[in-house]
Amino acid sequence: MTKLKLRIYFDEAMLGPGKAELLEGIRDTGSIAAAGRRMGMSYKRAWMLVEEMNAGWQSPLVASARGGPGGGGAQLTATGDEVLRLYRDVMARAEEAVAGPVATLERMLKVRDMSDGK
Amino acid sequence: MTKLKLRIYFDEAMLGPGKAELLEGIRDTGSIAAAGRRMGMSYKRAWMLVEEMNAGWQSPLVASARGGPGGGGAQLTATGDEVLRLYRDVMARAEEAVAGPVATLERMLKVRDMSDGK
Repeated sequence: MTKLKLRIYFDEAMLGPGKAELLEGIRDTGSIAAAGRRMGMSYKRAWMLVEEMNAGWQSPLVASARGGPGGGGAQLTATGDEVLRLYRDVMARAEEAVAGPVATLERMLKVRDMSDGK
Repeated sequence: MTKLKLRIYFDEAMLGPGKAELLEGIRDTGSIAAAGRRMGMSYKRAWMLVEEMNAGWQSPLVASARGGPGGGGAQLTATGDEVLRLYRDVMARAEEAVAGPVATLERMLKVRDMSDGK
């Protein structure tokens, strides 16, 4: 199935599928480390992305309590929830808007033989 | 100014801003090497992308005559023209469709001090 990947480059910040997935993971797991693990992302990189996101917006997207080995837990702020919701809205609108030309492109692709002899 | 980057992942092929720009460059310059140079892309990589594009669609997107040092020249086929046109259409539709939520996101970004003391 055809998928779109869309990155939004603001003047000083970027928002794309990786950051959106990380925010979603933090919301679901309550942990930056666990959210990163779910995406096969190192703890260091997950933290770096969170710090980048927290610096780029008027208020932080992720609230976290630094803890010991177990970690202090993390959650989305109201701003984080809203940014995630808006990104999902962007994706849904884009997918709907481009469905026509994307279907035309699909018909122009080489047809693979799916029978595979079976 | 905010910019969108959109990649379309079909089952067996991908179309994104790099390939679109390369197609545009070939159309404008009549040369795969010159189109690649314009993007700071190596000759080898430009050729690789053209070969990938020519293999993925029902007919090739780029017609080229392999030549000597000067190169044999290259041009878009009718299919190449159409794929490029459809990708530009996808971009225009996506940009229009997401303008609302993107403007909301822009207002949530940290405001940079542009005065710079000057």
